[in-house]
Amino acid sequence: MTAPSQLDAVLGRISADQPASLARLEALLRIPSVSADPDRAAAVTEAAHWVRGELEGLGFTASLRPTARHPVVIGHHPGPGPEAPHVLIYSLYDVQPPDPVELWETSPFEPLVRQGPHGDQIVARGASDNKGQLISWLDALRAILAETGALPVQVTALVEGEEEIGSPNLGAALAANAADLRADVALLNDASMWTIDRPALVTRLRGMLYTQLDITGPDRDTHSGLYGGLAVNPLDVLSCILATLHDDERRIAIPGFYDDVREPDPQELAGWDDLAFDEQRYLADVGLAQALGEAGRTALERLWSRPTAEINGIWGGYSGEGSKTVIPSEAHAKISFRLVPGQDPRKLADAFRAFVTARLPPGAEANLTVISASRATMIPMDSAYVTKAMAALGEEFGTSCAVVGTGGTLPVVNAISDVLGIDSLLYGWAQNDDNPHSPNEKFELSCLERGSRAHARILFALGGSGS
Amino acid sequence: MTAPSQLDAVLGRISADQPASLARLEALLRIPSVSADPDRAAAVTEAAHWVRGELEGLGFTASLRPTARHPVVIGHHPGPGPEAPHVLIYSLYDVQPPDPVELWETSPFEPLVRQGPHGDQIVARGASDNKGQLISWLDALRAILAETGALPVQVTALVEGEEEIGSPNLGAALAANAADLRADVALLNDASMWTIDRPALVTRLRGMLYTQLDITGPDRDTHSGLYGGLAVNPLDVLSCILATLHDDERRIAIPGFYDDVREPDPQELAGWDDLAFDEQRYLADVGLAQALGEAGRTALERLWSRPTAEINGIWGGYSGEGSKTVIPSEAHAKISFRLVPGQDPRKLADAFRAFVTARLPPGAEANLTVISASRATMIPMDSAYVTKAMAALGEEFGTSCAVVGTGGTLPVVNAISDVLGIDSLLYGWAQNDDNPHSPNEKFELSCLERGSRAHARILFALGGSGS
Repeated sequence: MTAPSQLDAVLGRISADQPASLARLEALLRIPSVSADPDRAAAVTEAAHWVRGELEGLGFTASLRPTARHPVVIGHHPGPGPEAPHVLIYSLYDVQPPDPVELWETSPFEPLVRQGPHGDQIVARGASDNKGQLISWLDALRAILAETGALPVQVTALVEGEEEIGSPNLGAALAANAADLRADVALLNDASMWTIDRPALVTRLRGMLYTQLDITGPDRDTHSGLYGGLAVNPLDVLSCILATLHDDERRIAIPGFYDDVREPDPQELAGWDDLAFDEQRYLADVGLAQALGEAGRTALERLWSRPTAEINGIWGGYSGEGSKTVIPSEAHAKISFRLVPGQDPRKLADAFRAFVTARLPPGAEANLTVISASRATMIPMDSAYVTKAMAALGEEFGTSCAVVGTGGTLPVVNAISDVLGIDSLLYGWAQNDDNPHSPNEKFELSCLERGSRAHARILFALGGSGS
Repeated sequence: MTAPSQLDAVLGRISADQPASLARLEALLRIPSVSADPDRAAAVTEAAHWVRGELEGLGFTASLRPTARHPVVIGHHPGPGPEAPHVLIYSLYDVQPPDPVELWETSPFEPLVRQGPHGDQIVARGASDNKGQLISWLDALRAILAETGALPVQVTALVEGEEEIGSPNLGAALAANAADLRADVALLNDASMWTIDRPALVTRLRGMLYTQLDITGPDRDTHSGLYGGLAVNPLDVLSCILATLHDDERRIAIPGFYDDVREPDPQELAGWDDLAFDEQRYLADVGLAQALGEAGRTALERLWSRPTAEINGIWGGYSGEGSKTVIPSEAHAKISFRLVPGQDPRKLADAFRAFVTARLPPGAEANLTVISASRATMIPMDSAYVTKAMAALGEEFGTSCAVVGTGGTLPVVNAISDVLGIDSLLYGWAQNDDNPHSPNEKFELSCLERGSRAHARILFALGGSGS
């Protein structure tokens, strides 16, 4: 149905319009939509309205739908009509906190374009995760509409504002708005390319159990000269608990933690071997020479198919300059677990709570709060959507699309499957060196352009499937 | 030489002038002289000038003597003349940081007088440690001068501004000003009473080694989804090191740590038993029911004659609301050791450094900084000064003076002994529930009055010894 010349014209327009795409991305990056930070709530809402306005500008009907915290934006474009294939495009408008702010070379919410080894890149919190990717598909839609006056498929847009805090209210939002979210397949543009030249489709994601552990001891801060040697020290208790999270082979030492882990099949493992993952270079990107992980497992297994436990933060007592001889009354830690298929985060939270309780000395108390919980996901690879999307990705980048896992977590994939009953295609334009949750996050402008073009190819390919 | 009626008149004047004493204390407490905080440097200097002004008002010649950081105030009053006994009165004008400020019931530098179980008490940072005690002797001197027109002894005042950061420059300041600090004996008013009704003389103080441990791993903060299971996590490394500081019997596990420890003699231990220390009540003061300390040692041994290791603070990674899936590039801790006679802090710092290094996994690096170091002290009890001071203390409080140790650290005692070659008498008016390094620090106003009276008795007693 779609003439190749029409697609070519769209691709040309996307490339020609890159200065305007960059300006739109900069405008969105200037909104500090940090979903974890209550002080940024107004900016989070502002970002939601910004997305709604963009969708309306493209001819979508769009609105904010409230959740218990940050709204989701839902938009709809009828495309060629009710008989055409219907895609649900998911993205997010929230970002990670910029901490530690002092390690940024620039202000995290004042985007800066600079020269990099792969051409220009834009530096700002959210550039790669995920505002650059959001702009890439908004501008694919814009170019298709401008060149053809229509879209090749029906499109429903779902843009959430709580992805970076674990999407706590997304399942409820999907359920409440299910009638407006009907579609045949979901496109999720929140992943990385395999290399700067090779696109990738993600077939498995780790789940996550994110917790906060609070330890209390004396009912007030005490003086180590007066109570040192007698009073339980919550920082000591916390250290002793956290130090036993791993055994000597870097396996998680919580009893039962591996009981439900499903191993990848040999074919999947063989495919990963063929990817020729460069572990040394991957580690060198963060200044490390040697991996520290579970014994007897390859790097990609450790990242994609094995659960992990990480301490994400510890605080308590005195952290200022000089000295303060305090035994604090409280100590705190953020501890998260990446989960793999088969594991149930609620069951593991109970196991972790029991593990902590068993390690408390007299006088210490613990409170474990589950901040977010989501199961791991495996995405079915046997549909026509997958075949068409992989072909379109391969055409844009001139190479075969890699089939990969990811160590990260996207609760939305579970929610879309569970609540809406549709499969998700997960791909994206991030690079491994984009620093997505770190200072100096960046996004390659070449990825903005090629990503937008790849989106257009995918939409045309999926539209063709309806003919 | 001094008629009892003269002393009685002085004691009566001290009691009558308590409203003015309280006003002076409030004025001093309003100066936030936090020596650890570079942002408070101006307030620290202001407090030094305040003390100099008070001394000059009493007829002392007084001046600020610079150190590498905060000045010492030195003042001199000739008393009856160069043949009279000469006491060096030591105090301090700096205070601990007020953190965590949110746990204060009042503003830490806006003193509040309120009713307590032992009469009125004043709440503010520094009230007990040590501004209340400083005012107690300034006002003893003031009353003696007002009633008698003279002092019974020569007095040199030494008031430092770095006690709460471990007196790093005091030794150098004493050496540089030794000629102006000649005296027969030092009186240190920086200790606690045994109970609200019973004074105490301190014969041993623990030393201290205060360190900061910095652990680094990846060269930037990384995403636990991208590097969890591969990259070394500095918070994990730190926890594992700190968890091994104690063995299962709560002994410090650093090799060689106990090599040079000198045990108290049986007579000293028997004296401590006679004090009938109420461990349960002491613990209950901070909300604890059970001690957690070195196996096989009594509570007073653990506090006075055994070394201890405490984690005073940990920080690293994310500590805000909600979640951030970061593997941080750095983790930090403040760790201090209380030392006992025989132990050399420098030697132990080396042992701790080796202990840390032996526990570093590949990819992690450690830096250990010594923030302060001081040996423990034992004060000789066989001089006439000790006998006279104990008698004066007993007279004021109507009970025998207890002979005790303290778990705390006063580097000044070492410095006075090493540099000036004189012994120190250490006593004071703090109570165990004064919260000296915690929120809601307080000082009993009855201690301000009786402490000031006891100072006057001691000065008269020591003056009488010269006749």
